[in-house]
Amino acid sequence: MRYVWDFDQPSEGGKALLGGKGAGLAEMTQIGMPVCGGFTVSTDACRAYMREGKVPTGLDKEVDEAIVRLEKKSGKKFGDLKDPLLVSVRSGAAVSMPGMMDTILNLGLNDAAAAGLAETTGNSRFAYDCYRRLVQMYGEVVDGIEPNLFEDALTGMKKKRGVKNDAELNANDLKELADTFIAIYEKERGRKFPQDPREQLMHSVEAVFDSWETPRARVYRDHAGIPHDLGTAVNVCQMVFGNRGDNCGTGVCFTRNPSTGEQGLYGEFLLNAQGEDVVAGIRTPQPLEQMEKPFPQAFKELVESMKTLEQYYHDMQDMEFTVDEGKLYLLQTRSAKRTGSAALRAAVSMVEEGLIDKEEAVKRINPDQLNQLLHPMIDPKAKIEVAAKGLNASPGAASGKAIFDADTAAELGKTEDIILIRPETTPDDIHGMLESKGVLTTRGGMTSHASVVARGLGIPCVAGCEALVLDLDAKKASLNGKTISEGEIITIDGGNGSVIIGAVPLVPPSINDDFRVILEWADSFRRLGVRANGDTPDDAAKAREFGAEGIGLCRTEHMFMAVERLPVVQKMILATTTVDRQKELDKLLPMQQSDFEGIFEAMEGLPIVVRLLDPPLHEFLPKLEETDDPVIRERIIALHEFNPMLGTRGSRLGILYPEIYEMQVRAIVRASKAVEKRTGKRPEAEIMHPLIGFAEELKRMRELTEKVIAEEEAGEFPIGTMIELPRACVCADEIAEYADFFSFGTNDLTQTTMGISRDDAEGKFLTKYIEDGVIAQNPFASLDQDGVGDLMKLGLERGRSVKENLTTGICGEHGGDPVSVTFCHNIGLDYVSCSPFRVPLARLAAAQAALNEAANTAAGLSLREAQAMTHE
Amino acid sequence: MRYVWDFDQPSEGGKALLGGKGAGLAEMTQIGMPVCGGFTVSTDACRAYMREGKVPTGLDKEVDEAIVRLEKKSGKKFGDLKDPLLVSVRSGAAVSMPGMMDTILNLGLNDAAAAGLAETTGNSRFAYDCYRRLVQMYGEVVDGIEPNLFEDALTGMKKKRGVKNDAELNANDLKELADTFIAIYEKERGRKFPQDPREQLMHSVEAVFDSWETPRARVYRDHAGIPHDLGTAVNVCQMVFGNRGDNCGTGVCFTRNPSTGEQGLYGEFLLNAQGEDVVAGIRTPQPLEQMEKPFPQAFKELVESMKTLEQYYHDMQDMEFTVDEGKLYLLQTRSAKRTGSAALRAAVSMVEEGLIDKEEAVKRINPDQLNQLLHPMIDPKAKIEVAAKGLNASPGAASGKAIFDADTAAELGKTEDIILIRPETTPDDIHGMLESKGVLTTRGGMTSHASVVARGLGIPCVAGCEALVLDLDAKKASLNGKTISEGEIITIDGGNGSVIIGAVPLVPPSINDDFRVILEWADSFRRLGVRANGDTPDDAAKAREFGAEGIGLCRTEHMFMAVERLPVVQKMILATTTVDRQKELDKLLPMQQSDFEGIFEAMEGLPIVVRLLDPPLHEFLPKLEETDDPVIRERIIALHEFNPMLGTRGSRLGILYPEIYEMQVRAIVRASKAVEKRTGKRPEAEIMHPLIGFAEELKRMRELTEKVIAEEEAGEFPIGTMIELPRACVCADEIAEYADFFSFGTNDLTQTTMGISRDDAEGKFLTKYIEDGVIAQNPFASLDQDGVGDLMKLGLERGRSVKENLTTGICGEHGGDPVSVTFCHNIGLDYVSCSPFRVPLARLAAAQAALNEAANTAAGLSLREAQAMTHE
Repeated sequence: MRYVWDFDQPSEGGKALLGGKGAGLAEMTQIGMPVCGGFTVSTDACRAYMREGKVPTGLDKEVDEAIVRLEKKSGKKFGDLKDPLLVSVRSGAAVSMPGMMDTILNLGLNDAAAAGLAETTGNSRFAYDCYRRLVQMYGEVVDGIEPNLFEDALTGMKKKRGVKNDAELNANDLKELADTFIAIYEKERGRKFPQDPREQLMHSVEAVFDSWETPRARVYRDHAGIPHDLGTAVNVCQMVFGNRGDNCGTGVCFTRNPSTGEQGLYGEFLLNAQGEDVVAGIRTPQPLEQMEKPFPQAFKELVESMKTLEQYYHDMQDMEFTVDEGKLYLLQTRSAKRTGSAALRAAVSMVEEGLIDKEEAVKRINPDQLNQLLHPMIDPKAKIEVAAKGLNASPGAASGKAIFDADTAAELGKTEDIILIRPETTPDDIHGMLESKGVLTTRGGMTSHASVVARGLGIPCVAGCEALVLDLDAKKASLNGKTISEGEIITIDGGNGSVIIGAVPLVPPSINDDFRVILEWADSFRRLGVRANGDTPDDAAKAREFGAEGIGLCRTEHMFMAVERLPVVQKMILATTTVDRQKELDKLLPMQQSDFEGIFEAMEGLPIVVRLLDPPLHEFLPKLEETDDPVIRERIIALHEFNPMLGTRGSRLGILYPEIYEMQVRAIVRASKAVEKRTGKRPEAEIMHPLIGFAEELKRMRELTEKVIAEEEAGEFPIGTMIELPRACVCADEIAEYADFFSFGTNDLTQTTMGISRDDAEGKFLTKYIEDGVIAQNPFASLDQDGVGDLMKLGLERGRSVKENLTTGICGEHGGDPVSVTFCHNIGLDYVSCSPFRVPLARLAAAQAALNEAANTAAGLSLREAQAMTHE
Repeated sequence: MRYVWDFDQPSEGGKALLGGKGAGLAEMTQIGMPVCGGFTVSTDACRAYMREGKVPTGLDKEVDEAIVRLEKKSGKKFGDLKDPLLVSVRSGAAVSMPGMMDTILNLGLNDAAAAGLAETTGNSRFAYDCYRRLVQMYGEVVDGIEPNLFEDALTGMKKKRGVKNDAELNANDLKELADTFIAIYEKERGRKFPQDPREQLMHSVEAVFDSWETPRARVYRDHAGIPHDLGTAVNVCQMVFGNRGDNCGTGVCFTRNPSTGEQGLYGEFLLNAQGEDVVAGIRTPQPLEQMEKPFPQAFKELVESMKTLEQYYHDMQDMEFTVDEGKLYLLQTRSAKRTGSAALRAAVSMVEEGLIDKEEAVKRINPDQLNQLLHPMIDPKAKIEVAAKGLNASPGAASGKAIFDADTAAELGKTEDIILIRPETTPDDIHGMLESKGVLTTRGGMTSHASVVARGLGIPCVAGCEALVLDLDAKKASLNGKTISEGEIITIDGGNGSVIIGAVPLVPPSINDDFRVILEWADSFRRLGVRANGDTPDDAAKAREFGAEGIGLCRTEHMFMAVERLPVVQKMILATTTVDRQKELDKLLPMQQSDFEGIFEAMEGLPIVVRLLDPPLHEFLPKLEETDDPVIRERIIALHEFNPMLGTRGSRLGILYPEIYEMQVRAIVRASKAVEKRTGKRPEAEIMHPLIGFAEELKRMRELTEKVIAEEEAGEFPIGTMIELPRACVCADEIAEYADFFSFGTNDLTQTTMGISRDDAEGKFLTKYIEDGVIAQNPFASLDQDGVGDLMKLGLERGRSVKENLTTGICGEHGGDPVSVTFCHNIGLDYVSCSPFRVPLARLAAAQAALNEAANTAAGLSLREAQAMTHE
């Protein structure tokens, strides 16, 4: 078996054999990029080492031969006492993995060679700096010497010399330090620092092998699901130096502008410096263009390499390079990080340039990144001082006057920009939220009322900002010692949870042409439908603007909350007889009808799924302490529930008070007829029953619904149900008998499946769970595929087992989460429905899911395998 | 195809061919019982009728021939004008089914025959009574005439005669009535009442066939899952009369005493009367023995028949008979209803007599019936006046002084019998409940706190007695106008929900010898283990007494509630640092340890599953309005949860406050060591973690548990988990990696699977759901097999897929419900655990499940088929 591959020797083993880093270096070398010479000790060798407990037979001979080839290529000799070949050793597994040995530099130096190098280069400081680094790295990594011992010696030396930075130490200092380090090494290990470069090298290779088995690495692999028997490769690479004179330098560059995606030179360069110097920011680098003058040849070669690599990888690259004595060496190239707009621009222009196809362009955009583009942002150039941080509950930034109650917000918000600040919000605050530019709460989590409503409204929200102490009576707040009075301007950034006192310049959201083009391409690839959740004609308009193909969830309870209606709703709830209740319902009927007419008209030609009343009735009543009326108090007490989430709500209301649902169905049906009469087109309204747990519930609710439709002589309407209880998933076959469609309500399904109340858990134990790694992510933000998702699959299978043409969708918050959208595609839902502002993301995610599925199918991978790969 | 079978002609078609009633009559006839002659028109005929839309060819001929045979047997002629053969026609499907035609009597009469019968019998009243009944029944059933028309005429006649009862009408009245009825018939139908007996008979047969298809019958079949194409049989039977003179009579008898199960004559007899007269209670019947004198031959024959039928059916019979002119006719025999003790006595003595075997004896006892035997009962002979009714939440009866607060109850209850009366109970009331003889609440349902705790304690509870209005400040209550002051004696009967003012004589519970014998037999047949839920040494002792094979659920939270501990627990909760919390935990440790020592000693040799702390911490703190302490108030507010059921409880506490669980594990482990040292036997303690939703939770809790066990050098303890969340069922394979055992917590699993909070739903929408038939039964009383049960099966399968020897049990309230116990047996659980007082029921139900399974296996039935049959 062969264990060693030079970078320029084709192996066909890829990453599995050479590791990610080794394969990349080989690839660059073989397409003619200026990469330092070197070779890779394969993962086969590591596996043999693990198996046999020792370096496998023949490996030293192969390494020796590779070194000889490297000597020949570089014109230098390993262990030479004048101008030695120096190498670096780096680990490199097939999957990028923290916790393993990183790097040993400058292998090949010893006492004599360091002196020789000093003499040859005429740069004694350089030579001993290299040497002392080698001793330290080798001592730590190969022989496990306590890093503090070396660090303390370095600190002591700086103190002795009265300097602050390593860079201020001179050649003598560093030579003395190298001696000290060697003394530390000998004291700790009881033997001399190895002077034989070959011994250094082989021990370093073994150290890399050993680092595969460190506890940290094992824990990481357990966590990421990486098998323990893969092993790592070892990369041995000739050292080059950007810091040994003015004919040297180092830099980074991007093949396109990472902020805008525009083509053109973009990078920085530093003369006579190492990569670390650029990162450390001690000296200010020059723009890349200025490299041309001192290094015309290297510059030309760099520009060509940029082009070649972009062509080769079909993607924008982020490269590191060094110029050593005028010659260019590429140290690394990787796919470049970019902003959302840059990603769009680059993708669209690469298609125009013929570099990639449309599929590739769509696959390459990270949907999460686009989120920022759909909301106003704090101007990246603005200088801001963050006063406190909360949860990034709803994206976008907003500035406005601080207002501490919903009534004032509702009033003042009509004419001025305001930010509503509350401990948390309730349905009573909706009118104030509607007029606010943003919402800030001191309690509650990502799916608290404030967060959910704000995301629905598309306004920024920072939730659970615990540093903020409210004094609602005095209408002011204190924030880390500063007071915020009513009317004072504050700014919130819901994208990162920042709270800033004062105004901050914002940049507006932009669905620019690139964005539009990508979404059009995406639409041509996706199978999954995308609808929006929306309760008003405004929502409906926004939904259309963002490309929604319908309303997947139109909640009717917000309609009950409007200021002029709440008194009627309350009277209806307080009614003790059906007759009295009917009287109030008769008043509500035309109001609801007009709501529906507005939405139906706005959604002309597209389906609208209307969900009947869902929340428990006590949500519409005042709080007990807010009223003295004995009748109201008695009713509030009677309606009180210990666990309202699991109480009298959803279709349970329809069973207990059929007259309420009858009114709602009548309003829908009459609105449909009125709009049809006015526009000549019949709206595609669908009627949805919430919180069904038993088939018999839906049977009765369907009968009620059909009865009203028949009374109104209104033809047919699809009638369906939310699937939001575990029992509904398990008994989906029975339920499907009475349903034309299923809509998975994954917010409540997550709560009941996990037994977690999101109102109680977020900011409390759930936050702690995520911090401590008990669970990987917030299940209310991204669908719990193993648990909740598995129940969805069960529900889907059982539902379809009795009704093949059952329409299925999801209308929980997960419908706007890209990973969850992929899951929805994979299990075969017909559509997702999400907040209008997330519709573009969902469209993109749905297209990516379809493209990945096609690719996986082409590769003959099962869904499970493909998911496992994505996971890695 | 043959359609008609005489009762004495063996058919081999059984119930499917002859229907239940027909098969029974044939059976009795063929073993020589004195049954009236007759024949059955088979279900084949009905199916042909439905198929062809008319009476199948050949049926009339077969009926004619059967009538001829019946004439020959009876010596009378059908349509004879002097002494006609009269017959009854009754429907009889294979499955007993309400909603179908019941009976037409006296077929064969017409104007002339009625007159002839009057003459022949010399009993004109009898003859015309028969005739008017025939006209009415025939008119209603065969020709669909409105019953009111006949009833009004009857009422008018009684008015005219100034009498109250039908029996007071004389021969002339009835003759006039028969004429009036015939006139009604002719007016309604526009034709004469059929005078041809043969026409009467064939139309009646058709009417029975038609009644199979009435909407009521269809609805019933839909509901009960009976196929619509089975059809019904028709039974034609010679009429006999107990009311045509003093040589006639009628009676009912039991083959054993239905109250005690003792052998001996038991029955009643009425001279010159019809069966209806016995039922109507107009005349007082004589004891059966007194029948011997007037009818020595019939009496002798009856006594012999009782013996023969009991031998034949191997069961105690409840028979109806008529003596017509001195000759005995058995009209019906069926398995006799009996009390719990009678069932036991009869079963045991039948085994002694060799009539049945032990298997049959065990199968025959209804576990629910035994419930009454395990608790004190109100003396059946006592005269009582029920003042109000509530829910029968925990069985048994108790008298005692009315007490309205837990503190007084706890104090006074030590020396006197008291009944605790509360709006509802909370964990704060436990100390009072412990000292009470019974609990009465005005709110809450079958699984409210009061109900659950009372059942656990084995004391009676009447819950949700809404008629009771409490004035807690004044320490009194009013009940339908009567005032109950503190200290006044009341009685409650938790078996039927009665509340009685004053004392009532009670009879004590008795596990008598018969009961013990049956349970011993049951134990020899069952596979399923039976454990008890118990938190104290007293519970443990009771559990052993009732035959529990271990403690399946030992809750530790009640231990935290004891008066002297609560302050320490509260300090522990209020601690703001781990150090302060540890200080209080150190105080609790020896207390918990001594609790466990007591239980472990009581359960020597049997397993004890200890569940770590489960309820949310705020349950241990006072209510907000009960304290002024700002620190406590702040902590109460911080711990407040909107949905505590779905909040920070169970193992979530163990993750957040590992020191609490560490203390508990240490207490268990040290108790185990202490008991082992004292007794030389190591207790079989198992440690259970509540509310696990994620495998990672259990992994961490297992690590914590094992760490403490290792620190205490205590060997090994089984470590397991409750499965009480839908996610735990779905992800049971992952969870099983860290579990030695699963215990399904079906109370919480039902709540989360259905999204129903039992505290909120019972007495509210759930009660309404059951009343209205949305669901068939309370899912907290009997397991929802389709939903919750299906999730359990999933959990079981997935858990066992990774760990074959996983021990599995159930510890929800369902563990004591016989139907649920059967389900647990069928899905293959290892044990059920229930309140000690239900252990005998569970033992019996488990044995029956095993015996039925064996029988079904022998019959080659699948589980599903067998369940469907049980359902019928």
